[in-house]
Amino acid sequence: MTAQDAIPDQILVSTPRRQFVNHPDDVVEEALEGLEGAYPRLIRWNRDPSFVARAQAAPPGRVAVISGGGSGHEPLHVGMVGEGMLDAAVPGAVFASPTAGQILAATQSVSGGAGVVHVVKNYTGDVLNFEIAAEFATDDGITVRQILVDDDLATTSMTGDGPGRRGTAATVVVEKVVGAAASAGADLERVTAIGRRVAATSRSMAVALAAGAHPGAARPSFDLPADEVEFGVGIHGERGVGRRAFAPADDLADLLVRPLVADLAIGRGDRVIAITNGLGATTGLELAVIHRRVARILDAAGITVERALVGPYVTSLDMAGCSVTLTRADDELLALWDAPVRTIALSW
Amino acid sequence: MTAQDAIPDQILVSTPRRQFVNHPDDVVEEALEGLEGAYPRLIRWNRDPSFVARAQAAPPGRVAVISGGGSGHEPLHVGMVGEGMLDAAVPGAVFASPTAGQILAATQSVSGGAGVVHVVKNYTGDVLNFEIAAEFATDDGITVRQILVDDDLATTSMTGDGPGRRGTAATVVVEKVVGAAASAGADLERVTAIGRRVAATSRSMAVALAAGAHPGAARPSFDLPADEVEFGVGIHGERGVGRRAFAPADDLADLLVRPLVADLAIGRGDRVIAITNGLGATTGLELAVIHRRVARILDAAGITVERALVGPYVTSLDMAGCSVTLTRADDELLALWDAPVRTIALSW
Repeated sequence: MTAQDAIPDQILVSTPRRQFVNHPDDVVEEALEGLEGAYPRLIRWNRDPSFVARAQAAPPGRVAVISGGGSGHEPLHVGMVGEGMLDAAVPGAVFASPTAGQILAATQSVSGGAGVVHVVKNYTGDVLNFEIAAEFATDDGITVRQILVDDDLATTSMTGDGPGRRGTAATVVVEKVVGAAASAGADLERVTAIGRRVAATSRSMAVALAAGAHPGAARPSFDLPADEVEFGVGIHGERGVGRRAFAPADDLADLLVRPLVADLAIGRGDRVIAITNGLGATTGLELAVIHRRVARILDAAGITVERALVGPYVTSLDMAGCSVTLTRADDELLALWDAPVRTIALSW
Repeated sequence: MTAQDAIPDQILVSTPRRQFVNHPDDVVEEALEGLEGAYPRLIRWNRDPSFVARAQAAPPGRVAVISGGGSGHEPLHVGMVGEGMLDAAVPGAVFASPTAGQILAATQSVSGGAGVVHVVKNYTGDVLNFEIAAEFATDDGITVRQILVDDDLATTSMTGDGPGRRGTAATVVVEKVVGAAASAGADLERVTAIGRRVAATSRSMAVALAAGAHPGAARPSFDLPADEVEFGVGIHGERGVGRRAFAPADDLADLLVRPLVADLAIGRGDRVIAITNGLGATTGLELAVIHRRVARILDAAGITVERALVGPYVTSLDMAGCSVTLTRADDELLALWDAPVRTIALSW
C-alpha cells in the first residue's frame, strides 16, 4: 500500500465545489470591504479606483512601495500592506490584472516625493498595466521603478522570446525586503537594486494535488487522474508543465527542491530563505511535513536555511498543493527580512 | 440562478482526496519536526514525551500557560506558542487527546513556581487527561488551574447531564488573553479568573460546505447533498447538528451570527472581538466576504467590533467551511488582546 489507501486508479471526477459567495462578480469588492472592516488599524480601502493603502501613511520623503495583481492569491497582496512592507496593493478581479488607472491612483496616493517602486509579478497583463501607469506617473513628476518577480522555475522554457518565467511566491520575499529597505530610508536606486537582486536569486516550484475553483464555479479549473499530480503548476488555475506519479510527500518534496538548488547553483556553505507555501486547501500538517523534507534536503547539501515560512502566503483559490521557494540569503538580506513588519499576513 | 451555477441537485459523490503524507501514522511527528526546523527562534519540540515549548522560556516566577489537544487544527495549538501567549502546547494524534504523560511533562517543563494554567477545549478525552496530569503535577508541588473553553453554541443541548458545549475557535481568544495576563505578571487566581470570564462570554457557530479528510484517507469524513450545508459542524470531522439549504454567503453568515448575539444577550452599546475563522480549505476571499456580513449585522445591532481576525486559526484538516466567534469585550480584555505577542499564528 502506498501513502494513500484505496484511491481508485481512475480519472478523478470533476469534483463539485461550493463556496461562500453572494454573486461571483461581487466577491472581490465584498472581500475588500470585509478586510477593511476587520483590520482598520492596518489598511484603508479606496473604493474607486480600487486600491488598499496603509491605514497610517508612511512619512513623506521615503520611497513608496506598491504591488498588485489578480485577486484569488490571498493573503497576497492586500495582506502584505502595512508598516515595513507595502504602502499599497492594487487588486484586480480574480486572476485578472488591475487596470492602469487603479495602479496610477495608488501610485499617486502613496508617492512621498522620493519615488515609487512597483513590485510586479511577471504576467503580460500585469506588466503592461503597471508600465502604462508608470508612464502616466512619470508625466505627473513621479519617478517609478519596476521590480519584476519571475521566480517560477517551471516556466524557464518561456524565457528567450517567450514571456519569461512567471512570478509566484518569491513575491513575498521581494515585497518584505524592498519594504524594509524603503522604511529604512534607502533611496530609489538602492531599493530597486536590492529588490532586483532578490528577484534574480529566487526560484520556486509548485505541485498540485487538485485544482481550485473560481468563485461561484461548480467545477475546479482542471481534473487530475487519481495516480498523478500536476507538476510545475501556476497560481492561476492553469495546468502545470507535466504530470508526475502521485507519491509520498518526501518524494514530491524532492522533485520540488532539487531543481531549485540546481538552478540557483547553491551548495555547501550557501544560505537561503525558504518558503513552503500552501496553495489554498492544503492543511498545516501537510505543509509542515513537506517543509521537514525541504529542510533535510538542504541540510544534507550543506545549505543553511536561515529563515523560513510555512503556511498559505500566495494561494491559488482553493487549490490543494504547495510550492517551495528558495532565495539566496546574505547578511544584508537577512537584516532586511528581520526588520519589523506589521501587516495582516506577516508581522514581527 | 442562485449564487452557484449549475451544481447538480444530487448527493455529492464522496470526493476523492489526496494529501502530502508519507505514512499517516507519522504525520504529526513529521509536522512537528518540520515546524521546529522552520521556526527555531519561536518554538522548541520535545520529542518524547511530545510537547512544544517556547524557544526562550519565560522568566521564572510567572504563571505558565499551556494548552493542547488533538492535531489537525493547525495553527492551533502549536502556532500559539510564544511570548505573550502559550508557554507550551501538547499535541495529540490527529483529532485525539494528548496523553496525561505528555501534559504532565509539559506542565513540569514550563512551571516557574507561580502555578500553571491549563487551557482545555471541552472534549471528554482532553478534559480527563488534563485532569489526570493536573493531579500528578499537584503531587509534584505544582499548582494547576484549568480553564475550560466551551464556546460552540451548536452543542448547547449537550449541557446539563451531557458533556456540555464543545470548545472551538474561542480558544484563540482565551489563549491570547490568558497569555497576556500571565506575561504581565498577574497571579494564578487572577489569570484563571480572566480566562474563565473570557470563556464564559464567548460563543461560536460553524458551517461546512464539505468535510475534511484524515491524513492518508481517500474520502472525506462525511458527504453532503449539493443543495445543503452542514450547520453547527464541529472541528473533528463529526457531522453538525443539522442540514440547512445551501444559500448565498450573506444568508449563511446571518445563520451563524444571529444565534451568537442572542445567546450572549448583546445589543446596542456592547463591544465584541470577532473571529471569522476558516476551517481549512476556505479561501481568503470567502472568509472576507463572510466577515463583511458579520460586521454589517453587528453594526446594525449597535454592537461595536473592537478587534477582529479573519483567517484560518482553528481548522478541521481540509474542511471547506467557516466559523464565527464573538467574545464580549471591555477595556481590560482589549488591553490584554492588544498586548505584544510573538507566535507563528499571531504576532503584533
